Amino acid sequence: MKGAVIHGARDVRYEERAEPKIVEPTDAILKLSATCICGSDLWPYRGISQTREPTPIGHEYCGIVEEVGSQVTSLRPGQFVIGSFFASDNTCPHCLAGYQTSCQHRQPVGGAQAPMLRVPLADGTLVATRDVPSAELVPSLLAASDVLGTGWFAADAANVKPGKTVVVVGDGAVGLLAVLSAAQMGAERIIAMSRHAPRQELARAFGATDIVSERDDAGIARIKELTRGIGADSVLECVGTQESMLQAIGAARPGGYVSYVGVPHGVELDGQNLFFRHVHLHGGPAPVRRYLPKLIELILARKIDPGKVFDLTLPLEQVAEGYRAMDERRAIKTLLRP
Amino acid sequence: MKGAVIHGARDVRYEERAEPKIVEPTDAILKLSATCICGSDLWPYRGISQTREPTPIGHEYCGIVEEVGSQVTSLRPGQFVIGSFFASDNTCPHCLAGYQTSCQHRQPVGGAQAPMLRVPLADGTLVATRDVPSAELVPSLLAASDVLGTGWFAADAANVKPGKTVVVVGDGAVGLLAVLSAAQMGAERIIAMSRHAPRQELARAFGATDIVSERDDAGIARIKELTRGIGADSVLECVGTQESMLQAIGAARPGGYVSYVGVPHGVELDGQNLFFRHVHLHGGPAPVRRYLPKLIELILARKIDPGKVFDLTLPLEQVAEGYRAMDERRAIKTLLRP
Repeated sequence: MKGAVIHGARDVRYEERAEPKIVEPTDAILKLSATCICGSDLWPYRGISQTREPTPIGHEYCGIVEEVGSQVTSLRPGQFVIGSFFASDNTCPHCLAGYQTSCQHRQPVGGAQAPMLRVPLADGTLVATRDVPSAELVPSLLAASDVLGTGWFAADAANVKPGKTVVVVGDGAVGLLAVLSAAQMGAERIIAMSRHAPRQELARAFGATDIVSERDDAGIARIKELTRGIGADSVLECVGTQESMLQAIGAARPGGYVSYVGVPHGVELDGQNLFFRHVHLHGGPAPVRRYLPKLIELILARKIDPGKVFDLTLPLEQVAEGYRAMDERRAIKTLLRP
Repeated sequence: MKGAVIHGARDVRYEERAEPKIVEPTDAILKLSATCICGSDLWPYRGISQTREPTPIGHEYCGIVEEVGSQVTSLRPGQFVIGSFFASDNTCPHCLAGYQTSCQHRQPVGGAQAPMLRVPLADGTLVATRDVPSAELVPSLLAASDVLGTGWFAADAANVKPGKTVVVVGDGAVGLLAVLSAAQMGAERIIAMSRHAPRQELARAFGATDIVSERDDAGIARIKELTRGIGADSVLECVGTQESMLQAIGAARPGGYVSYVGVPHGVELDGQNLFFRHVHLHGGPAPVRRYLPKLIELILARKIDPGKVFDLTLPLEQVAEGYRAMDERRAIKTLLRP
């Protein structure tokens, strides 16, 4: 089969790869209905994290079970399933506590920008829908695999509750779906920090009540102005840089909650600043598996439409153009059809 | 009057100071029943934070109201009161959210190692008991002023709940009272990290179920061993150094809670470490005012005896010896009688 392989900075190729097969008896092989490109795929694409050898890439997926290993008990070929970027057994103490991305037996799922995918620990990782969903729901279900689940975790980890004032830092796909998540959780006011008109528009469609285009200290000052000098109850940091993190911490009220869901790159936090800011801080790789059943239910009931975050759809063979479009910010998020 | 003045490293003098008087109409003047020396007073005493000019020192206090300013409405001379190290109005949004130490009008209370003390924002800061308490309760009520309130915040900020496994890093007075607080909140297992026999003993008296004397990586490994490889639900960091902070973060389970209540000195947190550790982090200057009514109630009902943390009592004029004894770890905490 052919799939996406990253060779180095700005060098993603659609090329021949070995077809995945069952390795462990707990594996499943999926025939993917759709896959996509993640903001975090741009770190190696931009050369910020290094690619040492040609590596199959992609970690967002949904599709039809093709084959299961001999120890898989809860899935059967023909089912439509969604999983996330870490495989987890969903039975260890960390999984039971809702932190499946810290599963004691976690394994990364990789190479998902392809027609077929091997998923380890299939029973713990994959969630099946009752029926094969209609095609127009596939983009939203694909979004649940990572970007929606991550935005949802951002809102949950920042204690978003009915009536709260929420700030979302970052207008990438995760940030936009963090807006949607905060709206679902009943936030009264959702301030999206964005300086790009199409993203501002989508943020509003997902439930943002205010847009702030200033950044850094000016951005913090604007948030303070909008909150009568108090700061926000919840700030969702969806970027992962030092600047965005400090902006998030600065925008929260004392006693407020800051979540962070993008892998931090070059982030160093000063203990005294954190101490005197009095914020709660929680984040990490989103335990998407915890939220999948709930998110799938909301999507199938057509209560949310996170698939709107895909503003570019390409056949898988054009994966390189998908990366270029996101890198150049011509696209928010690219869906790929195998 | 005479009171304690710090002149520089290891130079605390009992010397003549101006008697405090009402400056603002919201002030109260107290005649102190007892005061004490805080672990945080040792930072300037040891020269780790600098003393630029002779400065009255001390911030823990309880005593009898001597005089109130014209705008003080809830207090009257003769009442026994307890306050904490930041004066707060207790009416601003941050106070109402329970973060009185981030009050929009907060002011430090200083120079409390003295017979008399001026407390700003008296209505918001001081909590009066119904009657003047009997003398043997004074040490415990004094402890509520800071060290108990801070230990209590450590437990609360780390989400201590019935049935949880708790680790306390630091066997100073705050750490020991964090043990007491965790026990009051129903923790099932309380692991105190301490390598000093008298402190281990007090930790056990306050409710510790296990003692770990290893530190750093060995300490983390021991906690993992004691928790079947999982880590603790709640870790209360009561020191404020880089080593203790990393030890605390390393001892928590993914999804666990780490609180920190000592002013961090030289603490820098790496974003990726925090991210992949999956911990909740919350701390800051303890909003003791939030807890004072509850703590006073527990003390008056003789349900807790935090005053046991004072293992040295001296007349105020021997304040310099009080500092020496704590600096040399001959005393856990020194109570001073004006």
